Amino acid sequence: MNMLYFLENLGIAVFAITGVLAVRQKGVDVFGAVVLGVVTAIGGGTIRDTLLGIPVYWIRDFTYAWSAIAAALLAFFLAKRLQHTYQLLLYLDGLGAALFGVTAAEKVLSLSFSAPVAVLMGLLTSIGGGIMRDTLAGRPSLLMSRELYATPILLGCSVYVLTQAILGGFWSGILALACAFGLRATAIHRHLEMPGWLSTEAES
Amino acid sequence: MNMLYFLENLGIAVFAITGVLAVRQKGVDVFGAVVLGVVTAIGGGTIRDTLLGIPVYWIRDFTYAWSAIAAALLAFFLAKRLQHTYQLLLYLDGLGAALFGVTAAEKVLSLSFSAPVAVLMGLLTSIGGGIMRDTLAGRPSLLMSRELYATPILLGCSVYVLTQAILGGFWSGILALACAFGLRATAIHRHLEMPGWLSTEAES
Amino acid sequence: MNMLYFLENLGIAVFAITGVLAVRQKGVDVFGAVVLGVVTAIGGGTIRDTLLGIPVYWIRDFTYAWSAIAAALLAFFLAKRLQHTYQLLLYLDGLGAALFGVTAAEKVLSLSFSAPVAVLMGLLTSIGGGIMRDTLAGRPSLLMSRELYATPILLGCSVYVLTQAILGGFWSGILALACAFGLRATAIHRHLEMPGWLSTEAES
Repeated sequence: MNMLYFLENLGIAVFAITGVLAVRQKGVDVFGAVVLGVVTAIGGGTIRDTLLGIPVYWIRDFTYAWSAIAAALLAFFLAKRLQHTYQLLLYLDGLGAALFGVTAAEKVLSLSFSAPVAVLMGLLTSIGGGIMRDTLAGRPSLLMSRELYATPILLGCSVYVLTQAILGGFWSGILALACAFGLRATAIHRHLEMPGWLSTEAES
Repeated sequence: MNMLYFLENLGIAVFAITGVLAVRQKGVDVFGAVVLGVVTAIGGGTIRDTLLGIPVYWIRDFTYAWSAIAAALLAFFLAKRLQHTYQLLLYLDGLGAALFGVTAAEKVLSLSFSAPVAVLMGLLTSIGGGIMRDTLAGRPSLLMSRELYATPILLGCSVYVLTQAILGGFWSGILALACAFGLRATAIHRHLEMPGWLSTEAES
Repeated sequence: MNMLYFLENLGIAVFAITGVLAVRQKGVDVFGAVVLGVVTAIGGGTIRDTLLGIPVYWIRDFTYAWSAIAAALLAFFLAKRLQHTYQLLLYLDGLGAALFGVTAAEKVLSLSFSAPVAVLMGLLTSIGGGIMRDTLAGRPSLLMSRELYATPILLGCSVYVLTQAILGGFWSGILALACAFGLRATAIHRHLEMPGWLSTEAES
């Protein structure tokens, strides 16, 4: 429990940091940067809880919000140094996204929602914050790109809900994380994109 | 009841298809296209249910979500063939929007909300999904155009809440649908726009 | 109580008017302009109530929505005359934003949420509507600018939650409003921006 709590807060912090770095070069002040970093970190889970009609997690326990705010502030002031670790952050972000997705799917299943709802909510928790950030910042979001970002999460959440009754929550979670992060890390490392037959070209 | 259920799912499918076709030429992958199609189809009703504080309809009954997902997938892979039917889809979309609006107004009234809330929610259910899609895709939404898209819905929902006590739900619904779809079909057919005194020019 | 109710509706009307004026020069019809004006006025409070899981205030009492709709309609048709009062509206908007923020913080505290949640919700109520309008209209929002708009609200809400136990709700509210509006009015008057070390430059 304590380990998961720590990992969740770490995931939030990583998301807040990558969120700030993503908007920093557009010319923002500290307020805008922190808001967009925090939105990246807690936006997805906020939409999930609102749609499910349950109390929003960071309103019930503000520690999550503090993690996001502190990490975003840090990222704003230390951005130049963090730039060198960008590649590392990319992998951490992939790990964070996988963790967000799988733990959300687990949470939703445990609230007795159906498996498809759990997969969808896992996906939403994982990518919702980044999409909100990009929309608010006027940047094209990952919905408009061919990057393999959401597919690994979809894979991981599906693996979790399919194997969880057989393997048990723990091992199923490990397997789901491995699938999601494995595919994402490969995509980062090899610059994988959606193949052409699964994409359309922009018409000019 | 069964007929309405079928019509609702048909409306959702049509919205998902037009949603995918609307973003397809911008260069997206299958994931982005399907998400945006699904958002078009179920986004408006999702906001409605969330604002009213009632369980979100597609979380309670995932059939609605499956209709949206299946239609969006179909639209992505059959887009070239559907292009020929675009004109037909435009009318079907107008019919779907009218149906969404009027059935939502009916639902909200039956939950004992006031008539103005019912009209507003009917409108939101009908146009909310398309506006979300355009905002997420970085396209100008119908809020920034002079197309006669929302006005027919506003008319239809108003007709419904005004006549429903006199004509009864069924005939009032038929009349409201006829008004909404009639105006929308005329607008499509004659390329009607908001008249100049009800619009502003963009300043350069 | 009655005085506060009047002030709230006045604040909503002012927000709706500035909302319409903000989008008018982009080329919109009356429908889009009114929707965007209404979103500016009631969007922030709507998100607040949804996140807190309480009934949305303008659904419970539609008077608030009528104030927004009427003011937006008025602003659309009288826009040319209102242009002359733009400077006055800027100050009124600052006062409205301060009022929205502090009364929201008070409301949230009174529902036994914690002080940080109250500050965040005050801020969200105050600036959420304008951000929604800009996002929907495809304009860069205040998150991407260096204008001193949100900081005064953050100051005012913080002053309120910090002093409210000592000074009592009324005097604490007056002090918070004075701080928030004082800073905002100075920012408008002197064209204050976030200092350079708290901002980043846009990279070309």
